[in-house]
Amino acid sequence: MKRVGIVTSGGDAPGMNAVIRAVVRMALPIGLKVIGFQNGYSGLITDQKCPLGLRSVSGIINFGGTILGSRRCEEFKTDKGLKRAQKTLEKNKISGLIVIGGEGSFAGALDLTRLSSINVYGVPCSIDNDVYGTDETVGFDTAVNTALFAIDRIRDTATSHNRVFIIEVMGRKRGFLALSVGLAAGAEKILVPEIKTDLKEVYELLEESRMKGKKSNIIVAAEGVGDMRRIAKKIEKNTGYEVRLSVLGYIQRGGAPTARSRILAGLFGAKVVNLVENERENEVVGILDGKLTSTNLEVVCKNRKPLDLNLLHLAEKLAT
Amino acid sequence: MKRVGIVTSGGDAPGMNAVIRAVVRMALPIGLKVIGFQNGYSGLITDQKCPLGLRSVSGIINFGGTILGSRRCEEFKTDKGLKRAQKTLEKNKISGLIVIGGEGSFAGALDLTRLSSINVYGVPCSIDNDVYGTDETVGFDTAVNTALFAIDRIRDTATSHNRVFIIEVMGRKRGFLALSVGLAAGAEKILVPEIKTDLKEVYELLEESRMKGKKSNIIVAAEGVGDMRRIAKKIEKNTGYEVRLSVLGYIQRGGAPTARSRILAGLFGAKVVNLVENERENEVVGILDGKLTSTNLEVVCKNRKPLDLNLLHLAEKLAT
Amino acid sequence: MKRVGIVTSGGDAPGMNAVIRAVVRMALPIGLKVIGFQNGYSGLITDQKCPLGLRSVSGIINFGGTILGSRRCEEFKTDKGLKRAQKTLEKNKISGLIVIGGEGSFAGALDLTRLSSINVYGVPCSIDNDVYGTDETVGFDTAVNTALFAIDRIRDTATSHNRVFIIEVMGRKRGFLALSVGLAAGAEKILVPEIKTDLKEVYELLEESRMKGKKSNIIVAAEGVGDMRRIAKKIEKNTGYEVRLSVLGYIQRGGAPTARSRILAGLFGAKVVNLVENERENEVVGILDGKLTSTNLEVVCKNRKPLDLNLLHLAEKLAT
Amino acid sequence: MKRVGIVTSGGDAPGMNAVIRAVVRMALPIGLKVIGFQNGYSGLITDQKCPLGLRSVSGIINFGGTILGSRRCEEFKTDKGLKRAQKTLEKNKISGLIVIGGEGSFAGALDLTRLSSINVYGVPCSIDNDVYGTDETVGFDTAVNTALFAIDRIRDTATSHNRVFIIEVMGRKRGFLALSVGLAAGAEKILVPEIKTDLKEVYELLEESRMKGKKSNIIVAAEGVGDMRRIAKKIEKNTGYEVRLSVLGYIQRGGAPTARSRILAGLFGAKVVNLVENERENEVVGILDGKLTSTNLEVVCKNRKPLDLNLLHLAEKLAT
Repeated sequence: MKRVGIVTSGGDAPGMNAVIRAVVRMALPIGLKVIGFQNGYSGLITDQKCPLGLRSVSGIINFGGTILGSRRCEEFKTDKGLKRAQKTLEKNKISGLIVIGGEGSFAGALDLTRLSSINVYGVPCSIDNDVYGTDETVGFDTAVNTALFAIDRIRDTATSHNRVFIIEVMGRKRGFLALSVGLAAGAEKILVPEIKTDLKEVYELLEESRMKGKKSNIIVAAEGVGDMRRIAKKIEKNTGYEVRLSVLGYIQRGGAPTARSRILAGLFGAKVVNLVENERENEVVGILDGKLTSTNLEVVCKNRKPLDLNLLHLAEKLAT
Repeated sequence: MKRVGIVTSGGDAPGMNAVIRAVVRMALPIGLKVIGFQNGYSGLITDQKCPLGLRSVSGIINFGGTILGSRRCEEFKTDKGLKRAQKTLEKNKISGLIVIGGEGSFAGALDLTRLSSINVYGVPCSIDNDVYGTDETVGFDTAVNTALFAIDRIRDTATSHNRVFIIEVMGRKRGFLALSVGLAAGAEKILVPEIKTDLKEVYELLEESRMKGKKSNIIVAAEGVGDMRRIAKKIEKNTGYEVRLSVLGYIQRGGAPTARSRILAGLFGAKVVNLVENERENEVVGILDGKLTSTNLEVVCKNRKPLDLNLLHLAEKLAT
Repeated sequence: MKRVGIVTSGGDAPGMNAVIRAVVRMALPIGLKVIGFQNGYSGLITDQKCPLGLRSVSGIINFGGTILGSRRCEEFKTDKGLKRAQKTLEKNKISGLIVIGGEGSFAGALDLTRLSSINVYGVPCSIDNDVYGTDETVGFDTAVNTALFAIDRIRDTATSHNRVFIIEVMGRKRGFLALSVGLAAGAEKILVPEIKTDLKEVYELLEESRMKGKKSNIIVAAEGVGDMRRIAKKIEKNTGYEVRLSVLGYIQRGGAPTARSRILAGLFGAKVVNLVENERENEVVGILDGKLTSTNLEVVCKNRKPLDLNLLHLAEKLAT
Repeated sequence: MKRVGIVTSGGDAPGMNAVIRAVVRMALPIGLKVIGFQNGYSGLITDQKCPLGLRSVSGIINFGGTILGSRRCEEFKTDKGLKRAQKTLEKNKISGLIVIGGEGSFAGALDLTRLSSINVYGVPCSIDNDVYGTDETVGFDTAVNTALFAIDRIRDTATSHNRVFIIEVMGRKRGFLALSVGLAAGAEKILVPEIKTDLKEVYELLEESRMKGKKSNIIVAAEGVGDMRRIAKKIEKNTGYEVRLSVLGYIQRGGAPTARSRILAGLFGAKVVNLVENERENEVVGILDGKLTSTNLEVVCKNRKPLDLNLLHLAEKLAT
């Protein structure tokens, strides 16, 4: 019986458990045995594992986090660590390894393929949506909605006090989360790392919006833009409006996944088991223009996914 | 200055207000004046209206329902009603009418085009997702998540009492809502009007699932399937398990739209204003394979959107 | 080492798990061993049980339902059943039994005390809030908020369509849930079993409210009032307004408990362990006028908790 | 006709609108005219106002923030400002002023009574719950639940990564919010300004809890405790566990009020109108041991509400 390993790596994202469930439920009926490695890549190194049966994944589709655990693992970035992982995989007779995670996890997976002949399959699961080869990652839609829920609450205070609120969302070095959140929240301005922030333009925009009758403003900013405390103070000083900063932080990672994150988890799980079954070589699953697809792991790691700047302009037009 | 009318019709859907906002915010800067007709097609007949300015649509992006109101209108299905509507449009010098609604509303719009030379533009807004020419309607994602939220709560009781729970969701005569909800909820069985319900198969499935160790079961059923009380009783009688029915009802229509419903509202609003600007003839906007598009109104009305039965099978496999 | 049994019985309520956690965490440090009986009173009869340690109750404070399971148990209403339960308790050397549940569960507990010398302690956990001796039951606040969340969504549709919406909430034969929900929702009318429904008064109230400028109406009705479908039809027929009925059903039982339900669970859990420690005879814990207290089990079972009709009148005044 | 003024002051709290609604709905039928002053005390100074009728407060019971607006007002802390406010009240023939707010707002109200013969009535509305003379303020229950919702999400990540999470909640200089949130969240440790933080004790507690098998930890800290970044770093350094800080911030102020906040708003609104009607002198409404009451304004301002340290110990016992 063929044995496939599965590991969740890097920052957790809502829907990781739904992916694990989908992989197990699709793999077992076609004769694949699924071994879960625990605590991210460190479990690969230290051979922490558990077999996953049909009932092991019962009732987890709606849980945030990951039942396998995740951990940062510096050792996996060294040759020594990679070799230990390779040995674990050999010892357990793993013929394919499914990695559930984001950009950083796939970089680690690519390193592993250089040392080992094992096939590695990626399932993009990340609140940052910064994985090349897929329009959307599992967990992204949930994080967008969590941030939106928070902003809808902050808007009450903004309106009551005629304030400018800056909401800092996650997204690491990219602006995908900020863009979707800002568009959905009706933010007057969205600051993303992909575009150099022009504070003068922000001052003018705020003044203009108040002249048009707006009584409060929401600015959504990606964490990758820079020191938002400093920027908030500058805006307050230069415009004279009351400015408040809210850093949403870790609440964006957790919670029951949305329908979309769960459905994507199901589709990706089925697709990746199909890749394993066909012994495809080092691929990452994805969805592009509504179609399930897969892309070579190295291509995914070496390319930068573009941010749709048209959406950014649309968001700002809609918030006039 | 060109004048465009806007009306929300039929059952309300979360995101209708976000569409109104998007239309107004995109139309005004290009010199279109926007007139809102109130209470659905009945406002067209009786000339109930209000002009919509930039600030009329402030702070509504996150509100369920519709600020323009909606109403059933039997008179609009008669020639007399249609002629009165046509006169209202002429009197107000409306050169294009934007109809925000679902299948039924577009059928009414098509009738209107037969009597009047006015161009009618459709924006699919419906929790049923049963509009041809678009993969998704505004409001659908919200309704799916609301139903999912409800099922996550019911699951607590199902598990605690080892029960079979049947959850009836909306969807009129189609199974789109039931399919997405069931897939996301991890339902063991999804009953849709597109497939004849085979109760024997349901009995067997339930028995099998209990033998595999499942302690409770969730069945998601579309309202279009038939009398669910009767079906629930039959299942209870034939399997011996405790069966409970929960009809989710109107909660599925309301609430703050999800990020996805709001973003789609923005995209559709921008697209429909573009159609008006280019004086395109009777089109309905949509999104197909991730791309914004538009389809002739008559084509939309005359065609039946297919339900993806592969997804149905995937859902049931994942719930084993 | 003294051994105490614990059982959850009857309909589940949010916070049952938080009570189990509190009991275990308070009992163990003072040298009590806790045995959980499973699936309600049927587990007492059939001796289904598990010991509960500190870690058995980790991470359950925010879960709806009950990890011990619950079940209806007709046998427990017979002498034969009670005797079997008594034997189980003797066999397991249980010196006190903690029953987590509502009115029906306490009636069963009282029956048990007649046959057995064991002390039984009640912890009121019920979405109905119909237990004498406490102003509030664990789970009640959660159910009120869940119903409120649903009504806030339905209100969107009510307002958009100028409808009268009747929302049927749970509460068995009492109106506690309906009263709190109606007051919090701003319902124009609250129908409770404690007051005979006068439909003429409802017709007049609705007409009056429309004359005062109200465009839609919310009526909250307890399930114990009677056949609400029939009442809805009567109201529609007699007033001419569009009337819709929404039966909230089982969603009211589930979900993560609110802060208040969890805090009450903690207080009740600590209090009941204190009763056990002091070998008090057959008491039910409660909170009266903000103070933790306990009442004799028989007194609890034999008395009917009054509904505060002043609150009902206040609610209707506030909704004018 | 007697005229009563109403103003919302200080930081906004969920339920302020529900109080405004209750005051208007109770006052009008007994012949009181209600004038709303806008933007907090600054509206009193500059005579910004609007009359409030029955329909002015329709559909606001479930809205966060305040329809009257709120603002910080430094001028109101000066004699000049107070005199201007007094003149506004005289000019508008206001015989009683209802102040909806927290501790700071009541201090301002007390100042006003020293210059003016007008009677001032306080309605405690604050997420901090730091008002003497009432066990609970309107908005507190909502803020507790919002923070709890956030922590339930963060717990997913904490558990997946075996982390210590410190959650900083609001509460100004007091620990009421932190205590209730911590108790409801099952936090291992609750840091409040009322008790000097002993970090050694925290280190030991964390170590002990990990030895007992806990895999992650939640610490809830009040903002008044001190620089939480520094504390987080210290804990990480001294225990070796991964520590993360999440500052919940402004999301705690907003959102639809919970049932309890809305019901309290109704009760307080009715009570304060009763005080106005009876021309009681400078009182603040409250709820003590489940009973509606009122306390002299000066007494409220001069006394410090005690924090229930027994609850703190209970919380920590329950989290072992």
